[in-house]
Amino acid sequence: MNYQEIISKIYDEIKCDFGKGKLADYIPALANINCKKYGVAISTISGAKFNFGDAEEKFSIQSISKVFTLTMAFCRLKENIWQRVGKEPSGNPFNSLVQLEYENGKPRNPFINAGALVLADIVLSEYEHPQDQLLSFVRELSGNEDINFDLKVAASEKEKGFRNAALGNFMKSFGNITNNIDAVLDFYFHQCSISMSCMDLARSFLFLANHGIIPGNDKRILTISESKRISSLMLTCGLYDESGDFAFRAGMPGKSGVGGGIVAIIPKELAICVWSPELDKYGNSYLGVETLERFTTMTGVSIF
Amino acid sequence: MNYQEIISKIYDEIKCDFGKGKLADYIPALANINCKKYGVAISTISGAKFNFGDAEEKFSIQSISKVFTLTMAFCRLKENIWQRVGKEPSGNPFNSLVQLEYENGKPRNPFINAGALVLADIVLSEYEHPQDQLLSFVRELSGNEDINFDLKVAASEKEKGFRNAALGNFMKSFGNITNNIDAVLDFYFHQCSISMSCMDLARSFLFLANHGIIPGNDKRILTISESKRISSLMLTCGLYDESGDFAFRAGMPGKSGVGGGIVAIIPKELAICVWSPELDKYGNSYLGVETLERFTTMTGVSIF
Amino acid sequence: MNYQEIISKIYDEIKCDFGKGKLADYIPALANINCKKYGVAISTISGAKFNFGDAEEKFSIQSISKVFTLTMAFCRLKENIWQRVGKEPSGNPFNSLVQLEYENGKPRNPFINAGALVLADIVLSEYEHPQDQLLSFVRELSGNEDINFDLKVAASEKEKGFRNAALGNFMKSFGNITNNIDAVLDFYFHQCSISMSCMDLARSFLFLANHGIIPGNDKRILTISESKRISSLMLTCGLYDESGDFAFRAGMPGKSGVGGGIVAIIPKELAICVWSPELDKYGNSYLGVETLERFTTMTGVSIF
Amino acid sequence: MNYQEIISKIYDEIKCDFGKGKLADYIPALANINCKKYGVAISTISGAKFNFGDAEEKFSIQSISKVFTLTMAFCRLKENIWQRVGKEPSGNPFNSLVQLEYENGKPRNPFINAGALVLADIVLSEYEHPQDQLLSFVRELSGNEDINFDLKVAASEKEKGFRNAALGNFMKSFGNITNNIDAVLDFYFHQCSISMSCMDLARSFLFLANHGIIPGNDKRILTISESKRISSLMLTCGLYDESGDFAFRAGMPGKSGVGGGIVAIIPKELAICVWSPELDKYGNSYLGVETLERFTTMTGVSIF
Repeated sequence: MNYQEIISKIYDEIKCDFGKGKLADYIPALANINCKKYGVAISTISGAKFNFGDAEEKFSIQSISKVFTLTMAFCRLKENIWQRVGKEPSGNPFNSLVQLEYENGKPRNPFINAGALVLADIVLSEYEHPQDQLLSFVRELSGNEDINFDLKVAASEKEKGFRNAALGNFMKSFGNITNNIDAVLDFYFHQCSISMSCMDLARSFLFLANHGIIPGNDKRILTISESKRISSLMLTCGLYDESGDFAFRAGMPGKSGVGGGIVAIIPKELAICVWSPELDKYGNSYLGVETLERFTTMTGVSIF
Repeated sequence: MNYQEIISKIYDEIKCDFGKGKLADYIPALANINCKKYGVAISTISGAKFNFGDAEEKFSIQSISKVFTLTMAFCRLKENIWQRVGKEPSGNPFNSLVQLEYENGKPRNPFINAGALVLADIVLSEYEHPQDQLLSFVRELSGNEDINFDLKVAASEKEKGFRNAALGNFMKSFGNITNNIDAVLDFYFHQCSISMSCMDLARSFLFLANHGIIPGNDKRILTISESKRISSLMLTCGLYDESGDFAFRAGMPGKSGVGGGIVAIIPKELAICVWSPELDKYGNSYLGVETLERFTTMTGVSIF
Repeated sequence: MNYQEIISKIYDEIKCDFGKGKLADYIPALANINCKKYGVAISTISGAKFNFGDAEEKFSIQSISKVFTLTMAFCRLKENIWQRVGKEPSGNPFNSLVQLEYENGKPRNPFINAGALVLADIVLSEYEHPQDQLLSFVRELSGNEDINFDLKVAASEKEKGFRNAALGNFMKSFGNITNNIDAVLDFYFHQCSISMSCMDLARSFLFLANHGIIPGNDKRILTISESKRISSLMLTCGLYDESGDFAFRAGMPGKSGVGGGIVAIIPKELAICVWSPELDKYGNSYLGVETLERFTTMTGVSIF
Repeated sequence: MNYQEIISKIYDEIKCDFGKGKLADYIPALANINCKKYGVAISTISGAKFNFGDAEEKFSIQSISKVFTLTMAFCRLKENIWQRVGKEPSGNPFNSLVQLEYENGKPRNPFINAGALVLADIVLSEYEHPQDQLLSFVRELSGNEDINFDLKVAASEKEKGFRNAALGNFMKSFGNITNNIDAVLDFYFHQCSISMSCMDLARSFLFLANHGIIPGNDKRILTISESKRISSLMLTCGLYDESGDFAFRAGMPGKSGVGGGIVAIIPKELAICVWSPELDKYGNSYLGVETLERFTTMTGVSIF
C-alpha cells in the first residue's frame, strides 16, 4: 500500500471523530475557522509528494514556528544556546511558572512559550532584519515565495498576550531577556501568525529528516548532529504535555500548533504535515494525532 | 571501524573523566564499590557480541529493573495499565510529590519511583509467585540461569526506604496501591537488588530492539507495537531528569540505574550496556552517558 | 447583655444555617454523628461559666489535641522545638508536601499534620509514659478525671491513615522523625481520639488566656511569654487554610478539629468552645466559625 | 519605666547588631543609604509622643504604603474587595506565582506584591485623581503637609520592575487587573516611593489603633470592624514570610517596607514606627524586628 492510499484510508477511518475536539477560541481568527477542514501532505527525501484534502490551504502555523526560530538561533549561537534555554520536558503546564522561578528564569526547553520567547530574543539580537530574515528562511525551506505574516492574527494575539508578557517580564527580571520586551513579543506574535499550507510545512521540515540539508538544492542548514538534536527535542517536547503520549503512540519527532497543524518527520525518509483545527485538551489537533498514530501503525515507519 | 574497536577507542578517550562523578552513598553496598570499574557489552540482533573491560562482572541493576517489571505488568494488563500510571516525562524531581498530589496519586510515568511502586503492586496482584517469576523472566531474557537477588542490598535499601514508603502510603491514600504497602516495598527492594553483568543486561534488552521477540529462541514477549511503546517511554523518561538531554546527546532509548548501569537500544540493531559506578548530579552514570554519546556519534546509529 | 444571653441569641440567629456544612465522612465514628448537635461553653478567668445546648456532651477533639501536645513538647524542649518545626502559616493545602520537600522535612508550623507528627515524635521521646501523661495533663487542665481516648476512633483513623503515614515516612527520610513511625502514628491517632465536651475544652484552654497559669489551682504550665507564643500560633495557623479569614472575622486565637469543635481565647478574659459537627470546605465547623464571629462582634472583645 | 526610657534602653541593647542585616541593593536610592540610621517614634491615642534617634528623618516607606492603599480601596469597595484579593497568608515566596495560577489570578492577600497591584488597580478605578488623593490621605493621617513622592525612587523602581510587570500581566490574563498595566505599575511605583519619617508613620497608623478614627481631629476613616480587620491582616500577613514569626515574637499587627521601616500598633493604645535600613533574609528591618520584640517584652503590651 503506498502513502497516497494510506492517507486516504486513514481519513475514512477517522472522519467519524470530527466534533470530538474543540477550536481554539482565544482569538477570533482561530475561533472562526471551519472546523471540518482537514489536510495531509507528505514530502519524501527522494522528492515524492502526496497530499489529501485541504493540503494546499494556508492556516496559522502558530507554535510550529518555534522550530524555525530554534534553527535560526541554533545556527548563530551553536551550543551556547543551551545556556539560555534547557533541553528537558517541562512536566505539566501547571508548573511552568514555578519551574521557571526554581530554575532562575531559564525555560525548561525551547518549545514551551517561555523558551520560544528566549529564542525570539536571540533572533532579535543575532539578525539584522529579524522579521524579513525569518520570512526568507521559511520561504527557502518551503520553496514557496508566497509565505507571509497574517498581520490581523498577530494583532489579535497581541491583544490577548498578557500571559506571554508575564513570562517575558519574569525572565527579564532574571536577565534572560536582553531586548525590549515589547519588541520580543512583537516578533513572537509575528512568527506565530505565519500562514502556510500542509504542503509548505511538509517540505519545510524535510531538511530535518535529511539530517540538515534541504533536499533539492542541497543547501546545508545544520550539521547532522545539530539536525538530530532538534529532532530529539521535537520528540521529547514537541506536543506540550502530550509529548510523551505522542512519542508513545506515533513514535515520530513532531511539532504542533494551536492552529491545528502538526508536522512530524521520519529520519532519512519523509516529513508529513496534518491540519485539522479541532484541538484535544492538551491543545494539539485531535484528528492530527489520530492521523499520525495510524500512519506509523500502517506503514511501520516509527523511529522505535 | 567495528563495534569492538569503537568501544576500546571510547575508553581511551574518556578514561580521563574518572573522578568527575560520585558514587551513590545512601547504602553501603553501593558506596563501597570500586569506582574505577568500567564495562561495556553489545549484543546484536544477528547474534554478535562485543565487550570491553568489566563487562562480565555483576553489579546492582537498581532502576534498570523497572523495564522488566513494566514488561511483566504490561503483558497482563495490556492498555489498562495506563489507568494506573501515565506516560509523560515528570519535569524536575522537586515536583514529584506535588505532581502526584495534583494528579490524584497517579504517577507521571512508570520509571519515576512512584510509578515503579505501582508496577510492583500490579506484579504482586497479577502473578502467583512474583519474586520467582521475576527472576525466571530475567533469566530467560538474559539466557543466564545464575541471576539472583542480592539480599544484603535489598535489606539495606529497606532500612533507608522511608521516601519510597512515603510515596507508597501517599498513593494508597488515593487508592492507587492495592496490596499491603510493606509487601509492595519488599518486592520493589528485591527487584532493585538483582545483580547482573553488562553482558547479561545487553542480552536481556535485545527483545526490545527486536520488536518484542527474544532473538535466538524466537519467543515473542510483546507485540511489535507494545515493544515500541516501551522503547518510547525509555527515550522520554528513562534517565530521570536527564532524559531529554540524553535523548539529545545519545539519541537512543535507554534506562539507567543508581548502581551505575545504563542499557540502551538501537531498534532492529542492537542493545548496549555500560557500567561505571560514578554518577552525575542526576543520578546517572557519568562515564556511561559519555560512552553512549560517543558511541552514537562514532557509529552514526542514533534513532534520529 | 451578659455572655449567657449572647450565646442564646447567637443560636437563634444562626440555627437557619444547619445544613450548609457537611459532616466529615472519612471514618464512621465522625460520619454517623447527629448533625444537629450544637453546644457552646465559656469559662472566664474569674471563674464564671456559661453554657448552651449540648455543651456537656463529649465529642472527638481531633486536631484540637495539637495544642495539648505542643504545650507538652514546648515544656520540655523550650525554644529548641523550633529547630524541628516552623512558625509560619503554610499557605494552601495543595502545597503542603512540596513545602515540606523545599524545607527539607521541617513542617511549616505545629498545627499542620506534618507538624503535629513531629510534636508526637517529641512527646514520645521526652515522656516516659506518653499516652498516660497526655491524659493526665488534659484531665488536670480540664479538672475532669473522666477524659479518655476513644479506642474505636483511634482504630478507624489508623485504617485510613495512609496520608499521615506518607508524611511520617517523608519526614523520617529527612531525619526529622526519630522514633519508629508506627509508634508515632499510634500516639497521634490516640491523641486525636480524645473525647471531651465544650465545657471540658473551654476550661482546658483557660491557662492560655491566663498567660500560662491554670486558674483555680494557680499551677504555672508555661511562662507568660511561652503562653503568648502559643496563642500567636493559634491565631496565625489554628484553622487550617481559613486561619487568616478567621483572624479577620473573629479576631481571636483559636484551634479547630474535624470533629466540629473550635476553642478560642480572649487573653486575660476567657476561653470559649463551640461544637457543631457540620464542616465548611476548609474542614472547620461551619456554625462554629459563625458563632465565634458573632460572639466577638456582639461583645467587642476581639484582640484587635 | 516609661516609653522614652524603654526605647533608649532598647537601642543600647541592640546597637551591637548593626551589620547583621544587609541593605536592599536593587535600586541605588536604597543601596546608598547610611546603614547606621536608626529611629523610633511612638504616638499614643491619648496624644503623647516619644521618639529616639533619626525619628524625624524621611525614608522610603515602600510596602508600608500598601496599608494606605488598602484603606482607600476598602473605603470604596467595602466587602466586595475580597472578590479581588484574599485574606490568607501566602506561604513562602517561592510559591507566589504557582499559587496565583492555582487560584486563578486572585492574590492570597493584599500585602504580597500581586495583591498590592490589585489594590493599585482598584484605587485607579475608584478615585478621580489617584496620586493626588493618595498624598492628601497620607498628609491628613500624618498631620504633615510636607509628604511627597520621591520621583527618583519611583523612576528607579520602574527600571527594575520586571517582576511586578510579570505579576500584573499574569493577573490581567485572568481578568483581575482592569486598567492599563503601565498605569497600574506607575501608580504602584509612586506609592512605594513616598518619603516619610518615623514620626509621620507612627501618627499615620494611629487611626488603626484607635479603631478607625484619627485621634485629634476625630474623623472616622473606617468602621470599628473594618479597622480591626486591617489590623488582623497586618498580623497574619504584614511581614512577608516572617509574619508568623513576628506575631510570635512581637505579638503586634505590623507592616514592613524594604526601605527598613516597620510600623506596628497596640489596639486602643499606640502606634510605633522603627527605621533601620539593614534587612534580614526575609526583607524586614533586622533591628526593627529586634526593637519591636523587645518593646513588647519590656512593656508587656502584646495583643496576646
